[in-house]
Amino acid sequence: MLTGEMFIGAARVTGSGKEVFSRDPRTGEELTPGYRYGGTAEVSRAAALAEEAFDVYRATDSTSRAAFLERIADEITALAGPIVERAVLETGLPQARLTGEVARTTGQLRLFAATLREGSWHGARIDPAQPGRAPLPRADIRQRRVPLGPVAVFGASNFPLAFSVAGGDTASALAAGCPVVVKAHDAHLGTSELVASAVRAAVVACGLPEGVFSLLVGDGPELGTMLVADPRIQAVGFTGSRGAGLALVSAAASRPQPIPVYAEMSSVNPVVLLPGALAARGAELGTAFVGSLTLGAGQFCTNPGLVLAVEGPGLDEFVSAAAEAVRGDAGGTMLTLGIAGAYAGARDRLAGRPGVVELARGEAGSSAACGGAALLTVDGSRFTAELQEEVFGATSLVVRCADQAELLGVVRALAGQLTATVHAVESDEPLAAALLPVLERKAGRILFNGWPTGVEVGHAMVHGGPFPATSDSRTTSVGSLAIERFLRPVAYQDVPAALLPPVLRDGNPEGVWRRIDGELSRD
Amino acid sequence: MLTGEMFIGAARVTGSGKEVFSRDPRTGEELTPGYRYGGTAEVSRAAALAEEAFDVYRATDSTSRAAFLERIADEITALAGPIVERAVLETGLPQARLTGEVARTTGQLRLFAATLREGSWHGARIDPAQPGRAPLPRADIRQRRVPLGPVAVFGASNFPLAFSVAGGDTASALAAGCPVVVKAHDAHLGTSELVASAVRAAVVACGLPEGVFSLLVGDGPELGTMLVADPRIQAVGFTGSRGAGLALVSAAASRPQPIPVYAEMSSVNPVVLLPGALAARGAELGTAFVGSLTLGAGQFCTNPGLVLAVEGPGLDEFVSAAAEAVRGDAGGTMLTLGIAGAYAGARDRLAGRPGVVELARGEAGSSAACGGAALLTVDGSRFTAELQEEVFGATSLVVRCADQAELLGVVRALAGQLTATVHAVESDEPLAAALLPVLERKAGRILFNGWPTGVEVGHAMVHGGPFPATSDSRTTSVGSLAIERFLRPVAYQDVPAALLPPVLRDGNPEGVWRRIDGELSRD
Repeated sequence: MLTGEMFIGAARVTGSGKEVFSRDPRTGEELTPGYRYGGTAEVSRAAALAEEAFDVYRATDSTSRAAFLERIADEITALAGPIVERAVLETGLPQARLTGEVARTTGQLRLFAATLREGSWHGARIDPAQPGRAPLPRADIRQRRVPLGPVAVFGASNFPLAFSVAGGDTASALAAGCPVVVKAHDAHLGTSELVASAVRAAVVACGLPEGVFSLLVGDGPELGTMLVADPRIQAVGFTGSRGAGLALVSAAASRPQPIPVYAEMSSVNPVVLLPGALAARGAELGTAFVGSLTLGAGQFCTNPGLVLAVEGPGLDEFVSAAAEAVRGDAGGTMLTLGIAGAYAGARDRLAGRPGVVELARGEAGSSAACGGAALLTVDGSRFTAELQEEVFGATSLVVRCADQAELLGVVRALAGQLTATVHAVESDEPLAAALLPVLERKAGRILFNGWPTGVEVGHAMVHGGPFPATSDSRTTSVGSLAIERFLRPVAYQDVPAALLPPVLRDGNPEGVWRRIDGELSRD
Repeated sequence: MLTGEMFIGAARVTGSGKEVFSRDPRTGEELTPGYRYGGTAEVSRAAALAEEAFDVYRATDSTSRAAFLERIADEITALAGPIVERAVLETGLPQARLTGEVARTTGQLRLFAATLREGSWHGARIDPAQPGRAPLPRADIRQRRVPLGPVAVFGASNFPLAFSVAGGDTASALAAGCPVVVKAHDAHLGTSELVASAVRAAVVACGLPEGVFSLLVGDGPELGTMLVADPRIQAVGFTGSRGAGLALVSAAASRPQPIPVYAEMSSVNPVVLLPGALAARGAELGTAFVGSLTLGAGQFCTNPGLVLAVEGPGLDEFVSAAAEAVRGDAGGTMLTLGIAGAYAGARDRLAGRPGVVELARGEAGSSAACGGAALLTVDGSRFTAELQEEVFGATSLVVRCADQAELLGVVRALAGQLTATVHAVESDEPLAAALLPVLERKAGRILFNGWPTGVEVGHAMVHGGPFPATSDSRTTSVGSLAIERFLRPVAYQDVPAALLPPVLRDGNPEGVWRRIDGELSRD
């Protein structure tokens, strides 16, 4: 079923570069077929087709684009069996998790379809003419949002479906009216090919221009930079490491015409345990925490890598229970041999920092790409900036603070985060209230009495946050708000009725919410 | 009344650097008092105060912030006499224009006050919990927008009020809940001091922390870069030249934590004259065009520096009438001697480009900073990228295209613009319809049968556009949408009711529009 080819518009293409193979991280074995890297020619052709498709694609109405996204979801669902089977081989993730991820991916596509149909995405605003206004009449001014242009999307290793070929970045860019050129992640090339074939089938079924979607295979830094530098690409979506993300940010900023990069990069997702919650359920929290820490071998962007607490009743119980759970953990298969190696290095580096003590280590497991959990601790007085570097995997650091002032100091010293979690009972509310404004400046999502892993896909979700969690805190990469990343406003002044976009016409033919002289209305 | 001091929070401060004077551009004379440049100490102190004020200021509710903005407007109105008097001396702009600009400035402040009261700026979204959902219950997730942090604003030379100390950038940043540190433009230091005193009076009257507003005086590149590099500054608003704007973009990108820069830079604002309109009223359009071209000595960001037309009936009449109007123009006073010199140089450089022919030149006028209008022309076949560089002043280039294909080719070759104007009659609509999608990709505002100068301040306005018109096309620097530049979303998951921001509480105590499970509602 797999051919080892890329999709450049309608053409299935074999690159002329190095041949690479995804590997089964459980065994280290190469998985066939091989995929040859593409280069300048493939990037240029995909970008040219995307540019060629842009005007036709963006002129489609919300209903057609919604139908397209739903068709992609249907095509993925139809291929779910082979997709999951291949993804298990390529990622070592359990079948149940990948089956869930298929549902999440199709759910995202359907969410954006619903967002399109609802229509507020247009950002329609009308300030009607005031011909009699003194001293000068007011022109008729109308505003809507238009898509930015072709978007480059980079598949992520840790979500082979939901953040990859037809993941959130692709879904939101396509929803916005932007053609997408995806760079497949080397860790799951076969899964990428399968999902791309589903997208391609939907492009054909919906009669859209071929350039709406392409899938490239190539060297990350080399082909990635080439793609971001291509003058036809107008925005970038990325989920991955800080190093790779910043390289794309820098490539985008060095273009003659700079473009936005939405890079979701690194976060240690602090969990703050308040005294009342610790006293009430320290041990229970310790066990539950390790459940979140070791989920998916700790390979979530929202993995809780940092726990902060003040010395007091329940903290020892928390630590003991967490240590016991870590010791009892059977270890997991990491996504790639490279990630497993990087994890072990980063974990040991953190464990060796001054003042850091290792409390427990879990089983490594028997996979080629094994990664055992680790629990470390440090005194709040010795907390430094280097202790908040992300360790991608199931390692967490418990920071024991002498008092609330020290705790607040540590929180204030944190860099930007995707999430910040607070465990609190009612008696903790005054301290929680003092903490909240500090956390609001640090994180894109603040959660109480839960765990940060598990990112709900909905309208209110924010999966984003201040640098270095992302390169652009003004948005989210999960949830319906993500469509706004790929849009810009245009104003139409005294444009003849026949030439106005339908959404801005008198009588509101699309029946969407619009802002008339600043007031929302569906009339 | 003027002291020659900066405002660093509550303190009036004299810098220790070079003493500079604004000059009367009509005479070239220095205007007292002198202002001494500040440096590191002043930047650092202003940024520290802004950071200190941020949490208190952002916690104010919409009503209080609206009252603050209105109070600034009232204080400016109360000082309007001295402000206009000084601004006339410093800018050479006519009193009537500056009186209008006071009204525009206070109008902007009031528009943002109304935007705050309306409440949609919060971006409130609620996805209620679904405890019974299978396979996993859904948490309660709520979203609102929070301000980014202290904002640096750079006063613009060409709008000493509306784009300066209390101009659109300041008004929108303050509305968003961000303290503002303004760098005064050297061309109107006295006007800046007066307006700053009005803002300062409002800060005091509203009982806000002093750091909410500071005004710095200093060397543009040096102090400007220092300000943008200060770790406490979280966003930048700028209107000015491409060189200065790009320097700030680069300074912001080089920070350990990059921040957004909203730089409104350069635009030639193409005007496309379609055949029917030319045939119907070529001469009339020529005269009206020069009215827009020479308004304010051509010193508007939206000045029409490029006219595109196809050879045919009416084009000669347009050109003749325009040339006659340019010849009859008495010349204007430019904002500074430096701008006048740069204008003359850029005009002559453009006039000397291969294929460019000078059709007419106006009187230079008798001001020290005089700037005479010029009308140039070139054949469409000889149009090159260098012919679309902005000439800041009353020079425009008429591009005569052999046919519609050549016209469309020239339009497609244009860089990003603030505006694009089309003159058309009904018979032109097919061509206009073909042109519109091309213009949508080039400009932030498309207008028909008018002139681009004159930017309405309202809800639907877009004063922005693709690079190099601005450094960030996703937004506008004029109109109520501008508030969004200084906000980022935060999600609150299972946050206890008592700790939720009021706008996200059950029962909608603020009575604003919110998106509940994706549907807008005021319940």
